[in-house]
Amino acid sequence: MKTEFEFIETIRRRYSLSKIGDDCAVLPKDNQTDLVITTDLLVEDVDFRFKWATPEFLGHKSLAVSLSDVAAMGAKPVWAMLSIGIPASVWKTDFLEKFYEGWFALAKKFNVELVGGDVSKMPDKIVIDSIVAGEVTKGKAVLRSGSKAGDLIFVTGELGGASAGLKMLENGERYEKSDYKNLLLRQLQPNPQTVIGQIIGAGNLATAMIDLSDGLSSDLAHLCRGSNVGAKIYADKIPFDKQLNSITKSFAEKLDYVLNGGEDFELLFTANPKKKIQIENELKNSRFSCIGKITATGKLVEIISDDKIEVLESKGFRHF
Amino acid sequence: MKTEFEFIETIRRRYSLSKIGDDCAVLPKDNQTDLVITTDLLVEDVDFRFKWATPEFLGHKSLAVSLSDVAAMGAKPVWAMLSIGIPASVWKTDFLEKFYEGWFALAKKFNVELVGGDVSKMPDKIVIDSIVAGEVTKGKAVLRSGSKAGDLIFVTGELGGASAGLKMLENGERYEKSDYKNLLLRQLQPNPQTVIGQIIGAGNLATAMIDLSDGLSSDLAHLCRGSNVGAKIYADKIPFDKQLNSITKSFAEKLDYVLNGGEDFELLFTANPKKKIQIENELKNSRFSCIGKITATGKLVEIISDDKIEVLESKGFRHF
Repeated sequence: MKTEFEFIETIRRRYSLSKIGDDCAVLPKDNQTDLVITTDLLVEDVDFRFKWATPEFLGHKSLAVSLSDVAAMGAKPVWAMLSIGIPASVWKTDFLEKFYEGWFALAKKFNVELVGGDVSKMPDKIVIDSIVAGEVTKGKAVLRSGSKAGDLIFVTGELGGASAGLKMLENGERYEKSDYKNLLLRQLQPNPQTVIGQIIGAGNLATAMIDLSDGLSSDLAHLCRGSNVGAKIYADKIPFDKQLNSITKSFAEKLDYVLNGGEDFELLFTANPKKKIQIENELKNSRFSCIGKITATGKLVEIISDDKIEVLESKGFRHF
Repeated sequence: MKTEFEFIETIRRRYSLSKIGDDCAVLPKDNQTDLVITTDLLVEDVDFRFKWATPEFLGHKSLAVSLSDVAAMGAKPVWAMLSIGIPASVWKTDFLEKFYEGWFALAKKFNVELVGGDVSKMPDKIVIDSIVAGEVTKGKAVLRSGSKAGDLIFVTGELGGASAGLKMLENGERYEKSDYKNLLLRQLQPNPQTVIGQIIGAGNLATAMIDLSDGLSSDLAHLCRGSNVGAKIYADKIPFDKQLNSITKSFAEKLDYVLNGGEDFELLFTANPKKKIQIENELKNSRFSCIGKITATGKLVEIISDDKIEVLESKGFRHF
């Protein structure tokens, strides 16, 4: 069966859609500024479960996933819209009020204004479409398509926590009574890298960037496809979330969470090696790691662990 | 139970959301231009049924409902995004390809570019979020809030066809074999008033405008609430869709389709009486009717039929 990525590529070609295929569309705003915009659909029992996601967490996460896309363009988020479909049984509760509390708490942090939306009835599940727009200096949006052979590959933060948190939730762990609250929060209340994204954009630090939403193996492959390059990463340089130790001691299992788990909402970017010192300076207050380099081996992604080189298959999240 | 309109008003006040409450949000673009943007959620078994809506009709209608919102601001549509949630069983079919065929056929007509979107799995129903942005001369977007007592009330086109078509579909009539294809098309494949909306906007013809999506009784009430005015309309001046005769001969029933049925996607606008001749000139190639006038009786909407004046209750479409 075709994946959603293959389908989107088919539509892109058939209808000559030049603005499709990055974390956000980039549109001209005025002489100095481009507008970037993204839309993300979140579906109950596919992207979240009521059993463990409170309405406040869900409000936060709905905005966070789109802020992450805006960050991946190096842009500053500015305004947002929300379309919400909700069953009548949920409408009668205080779900939506609490959802908006979670949403606005995060929006306030980054000064994002809600400018529109829609509310509709759903037969039985909740569905949320989150739309966020940002601004970036004209021509400076960081695309997926600028990586060159020889560029270094960086990631922000620590990886694997969000999918390990999901595993715990699936196994019955609940936030209220948990000893692993911080790990669960990686899944329930992710932090978009809004500030770092803007530093990277403003400083022209990156040749390409993408957010880690599907999992490192898939997102790195998306970036390589966008730039028509390959990549080589080193397993021992990947910054594992230390909290992964609470769920497994096995290196192979931890690596699987990091590569194929998704939803960490950190940033993956590539940079010319000459920019290394500037990156170290400008991101000196943030955690980031150099995990490998871009190669000329067209779209082939390899991982090196214990001196063995293996092809890294994209096993991150996909709907179809 | 609170309606969605009441809930949106609560959120608007609580979080001081000044851009909420019209057909589109109006945002500054550049020195000459404002951006208008809207989002509309369409849900299977709430807004459409697979039994009678082909994928092509659905693609067309998803875009049409948002184009209608852009038209109601007097703006020109420019770009769009689509978020689609779809069950795995439907993913395997050619549904999406045909959906996009219907969508792009209409988009091409108005030169609207698809710039982004999302595809997600749904447990069992199809859901579509349609986002359309348009442009309008700075400060010239036609809002709901500009009506003054004494203004004339106009509607474009003919009304009631879409809800009568829905009634036929609900009663088992199917497009392929129908003798009432044109009436069914009012429901299945509505025409947004994109051209007329722009003429009204560019000519400064209207003091306020809204599209007829929920039904004349509700949409006129929305406009009156937005402008803090009342209205008086004349039943015998309302332009009934002639095809209503296929479904009923009763004037009262036809009036009910027109007032409370919704989805005609015509435009309702108000204008200073001094503009009447200019309106007649600029809209001379289009059907439009003057159906009443704005009054100072705060938000009270009345209908006059057979010399009887009655309060017109909002009985148009609502989700909750």
